[in-house]
Amino acid sequence: MKDGWLNKVNWAQDGLVPAVAQETGSGRVLTVAWLNREALQKTVQTGEVHYWSRSRRKLWRKGEESGHVQKVRSIRLDCDEDVILLEVEQVGGIACHTGRHSCFFQKLDGAAWVEADPVLKDPAEIYKR
Amino acid sequence: MKDGWLNKVNWAQDGLVPAVAQETGSGRVLTVAWLNREALQKTVQTGEVHYWSRSRRKLWRKGEESGHVQKVRSIRLDCDEDVILLEVEQVGGIACHTGRHSCFFQKLDGAAWVEADPVLKDPAEIYKR
Repeated sequence: MKDGWLNKVNWAQDGLVPAVAQETGSGRVLTVAWLNREALQKTVQTGEVHYWSRSRRKLWRKGEESGHVQKVRSIRLDCDEDVILLEVEQVGGIACHTGRHSCFFQKLDGAAWVEADPVLKDPAEIYKR
Repeated sequence: MKDGWLNKVNWAQDGLVPAVAQETGSGRVLTVAWLNREALQKTVQTGEVHYWSRSRRKLWRKGEESGHVQKVRSIRLDCDEDVILLEVEQVGGIACHTGRHSCFFQKLDGAAWVEADPVLKDPAEIYKR
């Protein structure tokens, strides 16, 4: 597979673009993380979402520790070609390292953020090995 | 309303965080754009989504020219507190400046990006005034 399609993406100066992972079926937005060229290429090649970890400065296969892999169903690009939308199947039903379904579990209620979604599995269990 | 809730957000060094606008009901991801403190504050105060335009370097009320305003229904924050998820009602059913429902109209098909969604209204009509 030729890589010309990777050139269509407007990579920022740091080589990254944000990627939104949306769950197929439920439509829930699960995570927003970052892709570089290699991460997007690996995502397409393997069918499993790879991100670029800005904090660890390395490629990161989502779920590599937890088993909570994101299987990619479709990949979309926005009009400015600088954001990617990934339609994914979330293995284990848990995307967040806190053990919740989605990373977006804090909801603004008046002037306070409240935890709106339950912890489905204790992170100590998820990352116990 | 006190602004302490704004301090919970991990604004990046440039003062921005990405914001995903998701349509209530359909669950479609419509746009991803950027918020600064003032944009998020105005979004909450007015009930209409305001972004920070990085290219124009100014606050921007979504739909101010097109009329395609985004009315905010709920606001969520992710686990790292550096991405916002906006649940919105998309006035006019068109979020994209190309006249499409969503900005994510380009879909990867093999090694090519294909336009997967129709233009609902000619941009020349949308921005004619």
